[in-house]
Amino acid sequence: MKASQFFISTLKEAPADAEVVSHKLMMRAGLIKKLGAGIYSYMPMGLRVIRKVEAIVREEMNRAGAVECTMPVVQPAELWQETGRFEKMGPELLRIQDRHGRDFVIQPTSEEVVTDIARQELRSYKQLPRNLYQIQTKFRDERRPRFGLMRGREFIMKDAYSFDRDQAGAKASYQAMAQAYRRIFDRFGLRYRAVAADSGAIGGDLSEEFQVIAATGEDAIVYCPASDYAANMEKAEALAPAGPRPAAAAPMTRTPTPGKATCAEVAELLGVPLQTTVKSLVLATDETNEAGEIVKSQVWLLLLRGDHDMNEIKVSKVPGLDKGFRFATVTEIEAHFGAKPGYLGPIGLRKPVQVVADREVALMADWICGANEEDFHITGVNWGRDLPEPDAVADLRNVVAGDPSPDGKGVLAIERGIEVGHVFYLSTKYSKAMNATFLGEDGKPAFFEMGCYGIGITRLPAAAIEQNHDERGIIWPDAIAPFTVVICPIGMDRSEEVRAVAEKLHGELLASGIDVILDDRGERPGAMFADWELIGVPHRITIGDKGLKEGQVEYLHRRDAGATKVGVAEILAHVKERVAA
Amino acid sequence: MKASQFFISTLKEAPADAEVVSHKLMMRAGLIKKLGAGIYSYMPMGLRVIRKVEAIVREEMNRAGAVECTMPVVQPAELWQETGRFEKMGPELLRIQDRHGRDFVIQPTSEEVVTDIARQELRSYKQLPRNLYQIQTKFRDERRPRFGLMRGREFIMKDAYSFDRDQAGAKASYQAMAQAYRRIFDRFGLRYRAVAADSGAIGGDLSEEFQVIAATGEDAIVYCPASDYAANMEKAEALAPAGPRPAAAAPMTRTPTPGKATCAEVAELLGVPLQTTVKSLVLATDETNEAGEIVKSQVWLLLLRGDHDMNEIKVSKVPGLDKGFRFATVTEIEAHFGAKPGYLGPIGLRKPVQVVADREVALMADWICGANEEDFHITGVNWGRDLPEPDAVADLRNVVAGDPSPDGKGVLAIERGIEVGHVFYLSTKYSKAMNATFLGEDGKPAFFEMGCYGIGITRLPAAAIEQNHDERGIIWPDAIAPFTVVICPIGMDRSEEVRAVAEKLHGELLASGIDVILDDRGERPGAMFADWELIGVPHRITIGDKGLKEGQVEYLHRRDAGATKVGVAEILAHVKERVAA
Repeated sequence: MKASQFFISTLKEAPADAEVVSHKLMMRAGLIKKLGAGIYSYMPMGLRVIRKVEAIVREEMNRAGAVECTMPVVQPAELWQETGRFEKMGPELLRIQDRHGRDFVIQPTSEEVVTDIARQELRSYKQLPRNLYQIQTKFRDERRPRFGLMRGREFIMKDAYSFDRDQAGAKASYQAMAQAYRRIFDRFGLRYRAVAADSGAIGGDLSEEFQVIAATGEDAIVYCPASDYAANMEKAEALAPAGPRPAAAAPMTRTPTPGKATCAEVAELLGVPLQTTVKSLVLATDETNEAGEIVKSQVWLLLLRGDHDMNEIKVSKVPGLDKGFRFATVTEIEAHFGAKPGYLGPIGLRKPVQVVADREVALMADWICGANEEDFHITGVNWGRDLPEPDAVADLRNVVAGDPSPDGKGVLAIERGIEVGHVFYLSTKYSKAMNATFLGEDGKPAFFEMGCYGIGITRLPAAAIEQNHDERGIIWPDAIAPFTVVICPIGMDRSEEVRAVAEKLHGELLASGIDVILDDRGERPGAMFADWELIGVPHRITIGDKGLKEGQVEYLHRRDAGATKVGVAEILAHVKERVAA
Repeated sequence: MKASQFFISTLKEAPADAEVVSHKLMMRAGLIKKLGAGIYSYMPMGLRVIRKVEAIVREEMNRAGAVECTMPVVQPAELWQETGRFEKMGPELLRIQDRHGRDFVIQPTSEEVVTDIARQELRSYKQLPRNLYQIQTKFRDERRPRFGLMRGREFIMKDAYSFDRDQAGAKASYQAMAQAYRRIFDRFGLRYRAVAADSGAIGGDLSEEFQVIAATGEDAIVYCPASDYAANMEKAEALAPAGPRPAAAAPMTRTPTPGKATCAEVAELLGVPLQTTVKSLVLATDETNEAGEIVKSQVWLLLLRGDHDMNEIKVSKVPGLDKGFRFATVTEIEAHFGAKPGYLGPIGLRKPVQVVADREVALMADWICGANEEDFHITGVNWGRDLPEPDAVADLRNVVAGDPSPDGKGVLAIERGIEVGHVFYLSTKYSKAMNATFLGEDGKPAFFEMGCYGIGITRLPAAAIEQNHDERGIIWPDAIAPFTVVICPIGMDRSEEVRAVAEKLHGELLASGIDVILDDRGERPGAMFADWELIGVPHRITIGDKGLKEGQVEYLHRRDAGATKVGVAEILAHVKERVAA
């Protein structure tokens, strides 16, 4: 490819609405162009990256036995009504009416359509297992689209769906996909982690996210440097501390803490470690009658150590809270505790509440909590002596760095990541909702056991940039660079020799199957180098008169501090070696 | 590829709503699956065809210097309001509101978006010419979607847009695209014709349709077997007959024609050739004031020979009718003619009308027309003697087979075609509407000269099938077949030798870069052959125990009447030769 025949458009400054580095660099390097909030054109330079991502995904999906199809972008509402998602999904689901007033949606995913295909096409267990995937435009009407392709509204996703005759088969299909994902992410050339994720209502452990490691990532990833344990924050288990609970040593004392409503403030005032304080979180659950009216409410008190954060997913699995919960109202809090938030605790309640202690809190002695009286806390609180044992003990909190690893092999560390892939065991959630069955070996109809597997094709380049950039621009891994090699001739218009060497090398690299661009635009060296550093092409060859007099050209990897002189006769081999490395 | 790892789904019967052969065969061969009216999933077998079509289009577009990008499916209404298309386009344009109530459309094409990109990115004449294209999902909310992918609502189109600094440049860009289209259609391996098309408001001759020849095509294509003249019916010119007008020979006679309201009925009743009759078409034009109220109407009488059909496009170019026209109301007709439709003519009018004669009619003598009296016609009518010469003479009619070719090189023939491509010179239509300018060499802003160029990617396979099928199924050209070669082993499960030969040949063909599928499903020969004949894979190799005993396998091209025996040692070379042919 010659630059004069391509579309190169770089900007000195990123637009004001670009907040994160990948968004800024994608705009500046001319990879994307904004059309509306969260809606971008993929410009020629950006589309090359996307196509390379797609090609790797496609190859590995095919290798794993998945078969590609394409499902419509515009989908009739009927199927979405079968699973209830047409009503249940919020305004993120873009709904349309056609000219006849019929309801449609723009696909955010395609579980309904693929399950509809399966129930028509896969009639016998003999046709299973089967995995269908597509690489297709999706739309999610985000309330606040931002960060460029990171959280856009229109995006490209690879979504695959597996159909199996039983759980064992579904788990094998899931594992095949998880393995394919590892190959895919290995080939991208990015640092990533596959982390266990919560599988929601389905239960079980069959859900993993593929997170590209980046300091700017939205997600916290928990991992154990001493083992292969890795999970997202929602999922990572906080083990119970080594028991037993220490004996009570301090007397229970009502202590004035005027105006100190947080654990941190109280600990500072009293000069004690934050780890000796306990925070109170008040939730409520409602029972409703058939008409949907609330007939009874229950107030819950969750106790966590002062330095710990509540993990909503874990709380939603506590028996009694697993049907849905809400934060209690101020009225409910005052009725049960006789005090305002900030000074609440489990002692001296006006009305009974369900007390759930985090595993950590359940083993604490001599702790501090609110006194249920404004401007007062209680110190030296001890289970059994000062209050009954909690109604329940559970893992309620996010893990923190240094917590023991759930696999018993060291302590946990935390880093940031960007989710770009997800593999998920669905069981019969969709097949039951849509009555999608096949004829089993026993001659009886059975529901498909399903899995779904996504990769954010257009998010991946953004994640790659968050991980790989410097102050001058993007640094692409070879596998997904818009071009692998750029040839920068200096003064090509005045030197016949520079032109000849540049064009010969360009031809040789192309013939070697290396994706090369020759910058024949006639830009001055400074502007030309700045463009390619911004765009992030990993390998650069500079050809100038001066070097050629000594029979040399310059090679520079985007990560190198300085260029390497290479003989004209050796440059092809040199580049091939570096590209392969 | 092995069939057991692919997705093959054939049907004995086509669904009832499939009217045309391509729709029936695409459904039966499992290429597509209906999701809603005019909305289809591209199943694995069909997607392979689409991908091959895309790949050929992409290669030739790139070769012609066009650069690929991707514009969004969901586009903000603002740009469409700039050109007025948001209002002007009918319900075919699918309009949506997002969660914030902002208006969007689903792209049917992307003139607005690409012009918006150009006005931001192409700032100087030095950046021109430029051609941007995409291969992307489109939506057109057809009132009556039908014929499968032939007239679907969601479809894939390749749309390219050229930007030039002046008309000469735009015409060069247009010609480059027209040439690329010829290469593309040559490569598809289909019989096609590039025909001149009307370029509407733009004028000029720079509009061509690429029509795949098929007896079932919706469009009539006019061509001259003795030259390279070809045009669509809208565009093909009917030359004036060789003059002069014959002298009047018959007296004008009021003739009873009770109940005979059509030219054909009158000619039959009177025992004269249909070519001696003249039909009257009554149109009207309206003048409106600034408030859009009609202030004045004019009635027009168009006269065509009884066996000719009116061509609406040509009529819309007659001076006075070129600002829009409508058919006259019965009230207007009765006020001007004093008679009902069926017996109208230019003689004995109650109120004056503008008379426009087709070129043919203007040179007729002794013709027959309505008498402006129910159940009566007039015979022996002659211009000048019985009525004044017409107010205007114009080409108003569709050509018919046998008409002289406009290039003077023989006579016209007519065949049917399916439009799958269109190249179009747009001039400054969109750039003016959107104020899209670049800085010219003279330092002044100038509007882009544009062209647009479409190929119906998903319609092409349907057109290919209309052209290439028989009673057993589809017959794909090699270039776009889902698989080029199928290996059908007989009794692979019981014969180790059959299996070994089949697998070896499969591997060898793959290694030769030939797209082959090995049918390892274990189907019986009859069912297996029927499947592949229906699917239309052009080259079939059958391997059986019996043949192998004699060292032979069978080769059959989908168009061959019978199989050819080929030695096992020669089959690879044989297939390679046939595929290349």
